[in-house]
This record gives sequence, structure tokens and C-alpha cells, in this order.
Amino acid sequence: MGLQFQLPKNVQLDSTKAHAALDVLLSQEGAGSEFTGWLEQPTNYDQDELTRILALSKQVQNHSDVLVCIGIGGSYLGTKAILDALLPTFAKGDTKVLFLGQTLSSSYTKQVLDYLRDKDFSVNVISKSGTTTEPAVAYRLVRKLMREKYSKEEIKKRTFITTDKEKGALKGLATEEGFETFVVPDEIGGRYSFLTAVGFFPLAVAGIDVHALIEGAKKGQELYQKKDSDAVQYAAMRNALYEEGKKIELFVCYEPNLIMIGEWFKQLFGESEGKGGKGIFPASVQFTTDLHSMGQMIQDGERTLFETVLWVNEPEFDIRVPKEEENTDDLAYLEGTSLHTINEKASTGVKRAHEEGGVPNAIITLDRIDAENIGQLLYFYMYSCGISAYMLGVNPFDQPGVEAYKKSMFQELGKPGYEG
Amino acid sequence: MGLQFQLPKNVQLDSTKAHAALDVLLSQEGAGSEFTGWLEQPTNYDQDELTRILALSKQVQNHSDVLVCIGIGGSYLGTKAILDALLPTFAKGDTKVLFLGQTLSSSYTKQVLDYLRDKDFSVNVISKSGTTTEPAVAYRLVRKLMREKYSKEEIKKRTFITTDKEKGALKGLATEEGFETFVVPDEIGGRYSFLTAVGFFPLAVAGIDVHALIEGAKKGQELYQKKDSDAVQYAAMRNALYEEGKKIELFVCYEPNLIMIGEWFKQLFGESEGKGGKGIFPASVQFTTDLHSMGQMIQDGERTLFETVLWVNEPEFDIRVPKEEENTDDLAYLEGTSLHTINEKASTGVKRAHEEGGVPNAIITLDRIDAENIGQLLYFYMYSCGISAYMLGVNPFDQPGVEAYKKSMFQELGKPGYEG
Repeated sequence: MGLQFQLPKNVQLDSTKAHAALDVLLSQEGAGSEFTGWLEQPTNYDQDELTRILALSKQVQNHSDVLVCIGIGGSYLGTKAILDALLPTFAKGDTKVLFLGQTLSSSYTKQVLDYLRDKDFSVNVISKSGTTTEPAVAYRLVRKLMREKYSKEEIKKRTFITTDKEKGALKGLATEEGFETFVVPDEIGGRYSFLTAVGFFPLAVAGIDVHALIEGAKKGQELYQKKDSDAVQYAAMRNALYEEGKKIELFVCYEPNLIMIGEWFKQLFGESEGKGGKGIFPASVQFTTDLHSMGQMIQDGERTLFETVLWVNEPEFDIRVPKEEENTDDLAYLEGTSLHTINEKASTGVKRAHEEGGVPNAIITLDRIDAENIGQLLYFYMYSCGISAYMLGVNPFDQPGVEAYKKSMFQELGKPGYEG
Repeated sequence: MGLQFQLPKNVQLDSTKAHAALDVLLSQEGAGSEFTGWLEQPTNYDQDELTRILALSKQVQNHSDVLVCIGIGGSYLGTKAILDALLPTFAKGDTKVLFLGQTLSSSYTKQVLDYLRDKDFSVNVISKSGTTTEPAVAYRLVRKLMREKYSKEEIKKRTFITTDKEKGALKGLATEEGFETFVVPDEIGGRYSFLTAVGFFPLAVAGIDVHALIEGAKKGQELYQKKDSDAVQYAAMRNALYEEGKKIELFVCYEPNLIMIGEWFKQLFGESEGKGGKGIFPASVQFTTDLHSMGQMIQDGERTLFETVLWVNEPEFDIRVPKEEENTDDLAYLEGTSLHTINEKASTGVKRAHEEGGVPNAIITLDRIDAENIGQLLYFYMYSCGISAYMLGVNPFDQPGVEAYKKSMFQELGKPGYEG
């Protein structure tokens, strides 16, 4: 993994500020420090639990066509992003992970339930409190379906609860029914939780090499605590651009299977930094696809954007432009060139054009898309996000604004305690 | 379809300006007026061509498992958005439309080609010029595969070209090989083209009721030319908010199958308005999913956002929260309530919370998601976009900034004529 960027002449990195923020993060005594458990997670994860998770995931692979993964926010996005990145576009054979409880759409939910009706499936409910509305509703529906399909014994074999280690609605239920449980650690918030059971269990069921994911993050754990590391540089760069009026960061990828990494990125940075009237607005695009939709605005709209490109050096597959006898399509000059080379040259050309158009442009380079690289990448983003939020002067680990809509929503729904 | 909004007290609609912009659009004499053919398209489409398209689409349904639809930008997003909205989440049986030529990703492209190898497929290449890099490269690869699989006669039966009526690379090739062709009209730009053969053919193959789509747009054609129409109001609202410093519009949907409508929306407004250092930056979120990721920033980040919610009154499917004996999950108060009702009350609560947090909030209401409603919706957006761009003082129908990256990309690729 690497990071390259060149700032506009008028923009200066504030290294002192970046190093101070790094120190605060590492001290684990800054704002929200009770949620910095993810820092050591690559070397501090619960090995016994992971061993149990891997053994159980094999059982699920054997007896289920589908694992229904019920969760929302940080209990959904990391797993979805990693699966999209690492699974083939047209998956065959393996246990499919389907998501539920990440939406209140009745049409989507009903279609998933209908789809499950004649499948053998297991369920993984992921919720720290067990009372978050979306996953709680989804789990009621799935429980009902399971009771219609399976015996009590079968349900026990097919239910996996990821929740608080000792308290909460789901923990109580699991104890009562004898369901397997995994732990959402107290010291790790949802958007920083991909290296816990939250990610491990559904990823393992889908056949992802969880140990390689951890290895990648471990690499990051060694690297990013250094003052000149990419994580520190990226945070400093974002902060400098924001102070110069760049209000929107575009996450850019050139591979469609990285789009959901962009969604995960948006939660991580948006929820960590978007508070107190501050914060870079995170948006995402996929090139070259979206050059044909958002390219015009990026090149020529308000000059308040910068881009961070996620580039992959070695594609999983490559293919060359075939020869044609006639050159009606003007592509003769590309005959024999590999598609990945064309994509790469396109990215270089786009970078230059956008920089010339006033859009600063950083590149994060992955060697390839595999579990180790993705593990390092996500850990890189989390580390950098912690530093970046401290530079901005906000708590990277809380989300106080979320209460406002929840309160208002519960009033509408007539939830006891929220009347009037 | 309906539109509701309430502006903050300090923001005033400029009706005079909005009516003037409407007049310019209707006069078809404003900037870019040579590309306003889409205005009359609901009553002016080529009926003979559509008859031919419907007949040919039946043939494709009979002899192909897959239609590979090769196109990018406006030749891709409209079709993709409509298919996602109207097809079931887990499609069964019907001819599947797969997209290619909308990315340069070698991994994605190779996987699609491998997938096609043992399928019976047809191809629809959509490109006005026939020389746009992404679709041209994809078509070379698909042609090669077709030659390996099919006789010349079969290829002829399975190839459909949507391009300029008389000139360009694809037109020449189609004439030579005897392929069926459909027309991309001169007076309709890519992002305004869903009601032409660009959309009609792949949509018909997928089983979409194209006539209902046209009917919906036709309704809009009658409505939106009026001075107090929703299309005029929406444009005026956007303009007023932009002038008050709202720089980002969030397209919000509460149904996952409308996400790609958001992508189509982003091209339409981004490419039409993002020029000359101006334009609202279009972003998209899906609620309630993304309340658990972007909710914090929307509630509490920089106050430069407004939201436009696309709400659907009647879901295709609904389902009620089942009863449980014990109320461990705190959901007893929702037992028997339909999921759609919960989603609706959530949306009402969120709207209020966001407005209180300084995020103005408009709602576009669809009766239901069907071809007629989607046809009217997309036509509504196009109409309103034309007015909105004229209010902003830009040409809604050009994309001059796109040349910059293309030139730079072709230099990198060594395209003849772009050296040095």
C-alpha cells in the first residue's frame, strides 16, 4: 500500500498539528478514548473466539445455502464492502451472505423472506443493544420464518448472535435459547469494528481468509504509529485541503467491486468528522463509469472538491484488446494493449486533467485486491480518520447527532417513553 | 406524483426567474436548444421503430439467456435505473440484461465474458459515435467471443446497434454486416435519452412495459409546461436554496431498488449544471440504511446541504411485525404494524429532525413504483433540470468540461492526433 499526493502551491501541511493528533490517538486519552480498542485489535483480537467462529462457519457452510446477516451501519457496511471486494462478480456454489435489517423497505424485506422460504439458511444477528429498530424488526420476521421451517433444535443450530458480552436484549435471548454468541467489544464502535466478530463470522462463512485480513491490519498497526506514515500524511492532507475551502472529498475507485468500500469510507469519515457544523462531506464515484456522469461537474463545477483515488496495481484478471481487420472504431492504436493498462493510463490522464481544473488529487495504491490488502486498507482509513478528526478538533468516536433523528422517529412511531 | 416542500424563512422563491427559464426551455431557442428534442418525445417518438423494437425484443427473449447491453453514461444509467426499480430483487427466468462497456475494469470485464461463454446471448451496442473508448473496447471483446461461439448468420440475428441514424463507426459496420439498427436522435443528448431506442430496446427485452413508461412521461409533458407545475417549483426551490448557500443536494430514497435512480439523477443534474464554477453538487443516500452512516453528518456537519426525498406511497409488498411472547427487543409497541408504515413514520421523523438541524427537505411522492410512475418521474427530473440550469445561467445540454479529461486521457493512451 502506498499514498501519493501533491498539494496545490498555496496549501501547506501542518505536520506539528498532525503529530499532535497522532499523539492524542496513541495516548488513548483523547476525546472518546474509551472507544480506541480497535487500535490494538490486529494483535489483540480474541483468538479463542476466532477459532470458534471458524469452526462454526464451516458448519454453516455445510448445512446452509444462505447466511442471513442482520445488521445496520457498522454491523453491515464493513462486511458488505469486504465481500463485494473479494468475492467473484458471479458467485457460484458457496454459501451466500444476504443482508437484512439494513433497511425498513417492506418490498425488499418481503422478497428476501420469500427467497429464503425454500432455502436452507442460518442467521447472524448483529446488534450491540439488540433493540436497534431495523435489525430488531428483521429478526422478528426471520425468527417467525425459522419457526415455520425448523424445529427448536434446528433453530438453535442455525442462529448466531453477535452482541454485547453480557447485557442487552439479544444476550438474554441467546442465553435463554442456547444460541451461540459472539462479542461486540465495549471499546470498539460500530464503524471501527470490522476486525471483530461483527465482520469475522459472516466473512468466514462466505469463505474469506480472515487471518489474512488480520495480517494486513497488523502491518498497518506497525506502520501507522510512525510520525511520517501514510496514515498521518493522509490526515494532514485532508485537514490542509479542508482549511483551504475544499469541502467535499470524492472517494474514487476504478474497479466496480470497490464501490462498497466507498460506502464504508463514507460512514467512517462522515460519522467521525461531521459534527459541530464541521467536516469534509464524503462522496464517492467509480471511474471511468462516472466520468460520463459526474466528470463534467468535477472538472468545471464549484472548486470545493478534492479526490482520493483508490488504485489497484495488479488486477485479478486482465484481457487484451483484440485485433479487427477494419479500424471503424478508431481502436487500432490500442490493439494488443491490456484493458488494465488502458484503465491505468486513463486514470493518469484524468488525474492531470482534474488537477489542472483545480481539483487536488491523491492516490492510495493497493498492490492487489486480496484479504491482506483490504485488511490493511480499512485499518489505514480508521487510523487516519482518528488523526484527521482530532486535527479537526472533534471526537472521532461519538455520533451525538444521531440521537436527534432517532428521538424524532420514535415520537412518530409512538415508542413508549417518547410520547409528545 | 407530487412535490411538497417548505423553505426556511429567509429563503424566497424567485417565481419570475423560474417562469422566464420555463419560457426559454419551451421556446426551444435558449442555449443548447438543438438538444431539446426530448421535450416532445413522449408524443413524438418513432412509433414504427418502437413496433420493430418490441417485435425484436420478443425474439431475443426466445433465443437468448442474456442481453449484453454495451453503453456508458446516458447510454447506461437510465436503463440500469429503470431495471433496478422495476425488476424483482431476485429475478427469475427472464432474459437478464448485463452491462458491459460502462467500465474499463479488466477484472469485471473478464468475468462477464467468462460468464457469457456458456450462455446464449445477444448484444446491444449503444453509442452515438461508435468510437467512445469504453463501449468500443467492450464491443471488440464481445464480437470476438461471438465469432468463437456463433456463425455469421447467428451473429447477425443476435446483434443490435443503437447509434446515429446515418453516420459514425457503428452505422457503417451495421450496414456492412446487415445488423439491425436503432436510432439515437440528433436532438436528444445522452442524459435525456431514456425515451428513445437507447432505453426502449434493453428495457423491452427485460420485459418492462415501455408503453406505460411513455404514458407516464406524456402525463408530465402536459403538466410541466404550466407555470405552477411541480417541475417549475422544484427548479425554483433548488435555485433559491443554492443562492442561500446550500451547495449539496442529497437525493434520498427509502427503497433500495431506487438507488440507481439516484445515480441517473446525479448525471442529469451534475452534468447539466456543474459548469463555469457553478452548480449544486448532487449526492445520494438511501434511508434508513444510511442514517446509520451519513446521518450524523447530515444532522450536524456543515450546514450546506438540502435533501430531496423520493417517497413511494404504496409499496409493492408489505408485511407486519409479528408478535413475540416476550418483549426483550422493545418492539411490542410495533406488533401488527406494517413495515411500510414504520418506514413512513421514520421518514416523517427524520424530515423533522433534519429540518430542525438546518437541512431543508423536499419530498417527491410517487403513488407506486411502476413503469408509468417511473416514466413520469424521470421526465419530471429532466424538465426541472432544464429550467433549473437556465435559472443558474448555464446551458443545460452541453458538457464542455468532459473534453479536458478525454484529451488528457488520449494523450496518455497515445491516440493518433493527441500526441505531445
